[in-house]
Amino acid sequence: MSGPAAAPVRHAAIIGGGVIGSGWAARFLLNGIDVSVYDPDPDLARKLATVLVNARAALAQLLPGVLPQEGKLIIVASVEEAVSSADFIQESLPEREDLKQAVLAQIEAAAGPDVIIGSSTSGLLPSRLQQRMRHPERLVVGHPFNPVYLLPLVEICGGAATSEATRVQVEAFYRSVGMHPLQVRKEIDGFIADRLLEALWREALWLVRDGVATTTEIDDAIRYGAGLRWAFMGTFLIYRVAGGESGMRHFLSQFGPALKLPWTRLEAPDLTDELADEIARQSDEQAGAASIRDLERVRDRCLVSILSALRREDFAAGSTVRRYFEVLATKARRARAPIDESQPLMLYVGNVLPEWIDYNGHMTEARYLEVFGNATDALLDYIGAGPEYVANGHSYFTVETHIRHLGEAAQGQSLRATTQVLAGDTKRLRLFHTLVRASDGLVLATGEHMLLHVDVRARRSAVVSGDVLRAVERLANAHAALPVPTGTGRAIGAPIA
Amino acid sequence: MSGPAAAPVRHAAIIGGGVIGSGWAARFLLNGIDVSVYDPDPDLARKLATVLVNARAALAQLLPGVLPQEGKLIIVASVEEAVSSADFIQESLPEREDLKQAVLAQIEAAAGPDVIIGSSTSGLLPSRLQQRMRHPERLVVGHPFNPVYLLPLVEICGGAATSEATRVQVEAFYRSVGMHPLQVRKEIDGFIADRLLEALWREALWLVRDGVATTTEIDDAIRYGAGLRWAFMGTFLIYRVAGGESGMRHFLSQFGPALKLPWTRLEAPDLTDELADEIARQSDEQAGAASIRDLERVRDRCLVSILSALRREDFAAGSTVRRYFEVLATKARRARAPIDESQPLMLYVGNVLPEWIDYNGHMTEARYLEVFGNATDALLDYIGAGPEYVANGHSYFTVETHIRHLGEAAQGQSLRATTQVLAGDTKRLRLFHTLVRASDGLVLATGEHMLLHVDVRARRSAVVSGDVLRAVERLANAHAALPVPTGTGRAIGAPIA
Repeated sequence: MSGPAAAPVRHAAIIGGGVIGSGWAARFLLNGIDVSVYDPDPDLARKLATVLVNARAALAQLLPGVLPQEGKLIIVASVEEAVSSADFIQESLPEREDLKQAVLAQIEAAAGPDVIIGSSTSGLLPSRLQQRMRHPERLVVGHPFNPVYLLPLVEICGGAATSEATRVQVEAFYRSVGMHPLQVRKEIDGFIADRLLEALWREALWLVRDGVATTTEIDDAIRYGAGLRWAFMGTFLIYRVAGGESGMRHFLSQFGPALKLPWTRLEAPDLTDELADEIARQSDEQAGAASIRDLERVRDRCLVSILSALRREDFAAGSTVRRYFEVLATKARRARAPIDESQPLMLYVGNVLPEWIDYNGHMTEARYLEVFGNATDALLDYIGAGPEYVANGHSYFTVETHIRHLGEAAQGQSLRATTQVLAGDTKRLRLFHTLVRASDGLVLATGEHMLLHVDVRARRSAVVSGDVLRAVERLANAHAALPVPTGTGRAIGAPIA
Repeated sequence: MSGPAAAPVRHAAIIGGGVIGSGWAARFLLNGIDVSVYDPDPDLARKLATVLVNARAALAQLLPGVLPQEGKLIIVASVEEAVSSADFIQESLPEREDLKQAVLAQIEAAAGPDVIIGSSTSGLLPSRLQQRMRHPERLVVGHPFNPVYLLPLVEICGGAATSEATRVQVEAFYRSVGMHPLQVRKEIDGFIADRLLEALWREALWLVRDGVATTTEIDDAIRYGAGLRWAFMGTFLIYRVAGGESGMRHFLSQFGPALKLPWTRLEAPDLTDELADEIARQSDEQAGAASIRDLERVRDRCLVSILSALRREDFAAGSTVRRYFEVLATKARRARAPIDESQPLMLYVGNVLPEWIDYNGHMTEARYLEVFGNATDALLDYIGAGPEYVANGHSYFTVETHIRHLGEAAQGQSLRATTQVLAGDTKRLRLFHTLVRASDGLVLATGEHMLLHVDVRARRSAVVSGDVLRAVERLANAHAALPVPTGTGRAIGAPIA
């Protein structure tokens, strides 16, 4: 990567293979770039391999099917060997100015004169790092965040001698490997992000030192609250929204007095009229055309998405939501009207969620089977063959499914599914679900399913007995009196009605 | 909510209906609790209604189908009217000690003597708020975070006179409405969360004042980096993982010197051996049996989930991932080997993700249709009927699906689907997908699908023409020479092979 019209990076050198250096190596390799790594740690190869395993798994999930062929990882024995054929160099050594300066001299002795060097320093000043360099114009800070292969942020900060071309090219390069570069315009210790992180971290250390809270309590104070917002909106935009309809100026006037309260060990600047005006102006610019109502909706949508994502992981605030859901679901089940078994059972009620919509602007096909799967689970639960039954060694597996799509479902619409038991004996259970739009009863789809009763340990079919068999036979008998639903037993290829 | 064996809250009073008060009102109402709100703001009803619209939409998505019948919202004209029949009271007035003390006196004059009062104060001391109360034992801080109806955190902090029963009961109540209560054990200005938030906020104000960064740059420095981690792990657990295999002590010794650097305006405590030991001990306790490797995996899983969630919203770091994916996908398409059209097309390759596994310990049925849907999309893309074609007014909609489940898929297994075009004309397209386990070629499922070509605006079938029709006919002709796959045209009810 040299000259204003830089060629793509094909071979990067990583100097320092700790947590940050190996994270860089993983990001570059998974973007198809060959990487030479130097670190005196004798255990380097094993540590790099561990990080790579994590990074491969994570990126395969985040970017399924599109990653290029992985670059080649070369572990080398010296700084010189690492940089001599590199067209980009990333330095990730411990945070000691003298050490970094010495290694930069070693790098310059072996690397081409216009190969860009990015330093991962969390807060040392690039003007000082480049002081003794022969080609200081190609040194720039590229400060990433752990895990480097997943977090998009990289702060770019030039020193007094850094050229504009270096800043521009390094931004394009980091962007090409999936990052979000943030140009730090004013060289300052800690740049931007670490000044904020460090303030929070130092306050946290005081809290532990003073016995106010434990590390667990402090972490919980973040991850169940403001941390969830910080994943997508920073502190200014969040406070703008909190200010409500009256905007940022109102918020500042409301919370300005609190800046004088001893709520942290950090003294606040005077909230002069000039400062308040400047913040309000910048905040207006940041929000652009988005009203507070718009921002509230984006905020809520993102929070719902994040909480739902964490709920699937059953971690942190996601566990809270999961438990809450289960308690509510139990209550909702108990509150439901008694079921009339002479009619198809109404066991599924739900709404079309935003993430169910595909590029055709309607509920995507897999979600129909998800709804039918939920209806099947509800029926199994009803006949006493739910998760507890599975834990005790038996279950029903679906072996065949037939879906007819008859109408479209749009986001937010209420859905209802009814379930008819077409047949059931000691081995099989044949179900027919009808999915309707709750507002007008329009049939959106039907699902016909054949299930087999199985022994969970042996993973093979097994005979049903006891209460479950009695419930199956009772429902099959009751529903035998109902008309056979249209579409039952249909095969694809038959004429479309 | 009174007495040690407290009855469930049926009627709550909200004093102060600003952003926080109306957020409380929404959370309580959506949990089926009747709510009386008092606020002198003449515009209260409209503002409450707006928050409720947001809250209903958000919770319907987060907790589909399980919310109880909404409570009744009553807007009242005085504090007395609000609290007289309430069995729980939440105060959310502006952060002025004298104002809160005066209103607490009003509340006590009208409320039952043992009804618990939660104060939403962000950092005022409960011991001072309860100074002049007749029944100070029932006052406790319950400090929530905006939006109150979505964020789980609520800090509980008692004053000198708060009873243990009050603390216990208020925790149970907040938990019952879906929150994560954090007991603040030592009464301190700003409690725990706001001390951290306020340190970060004050540092941010300095950065704007000193012209180092704008509000947008500061927000970006959070939401593209550390903010993504803070959504599920706090600062101590994250740093424990960053310390790598050598653990928290190593991390502290490595970054201890940086505490002396001018990286924030906040001075750090001395990192004495005692403090380092205490932090390491608490951090060990916090991590429990989880190794650094375990924590790394949890961290990466949560980050992937959150980034994927934000990608669906196309917001913040999610937009970065979306653009990155599109660039990679374009490159991947260009790099792909030429496809042999005389055989079924291999257009889908992927892995069984953890969230695809159901309580039977195998890939759940809806994911089979998701995979088949992806294979169908890939085929449509291949014949020139992908998203761009849809944007131009035409698409293919699936009208019928038949799935046979022949084997089970376990987490992490690699999958591959091949697609045979059974038939295709100017209106219809009939596909047959075969899903196999990549390791040994075992057939896991087959999917037969009938698709109809449609006019997207009219939402009705329309004739195909041009390049897409030529591609359909070319593939249908080429695949006509292949054997008809087993199971084609099968209907449910036919004997199982």
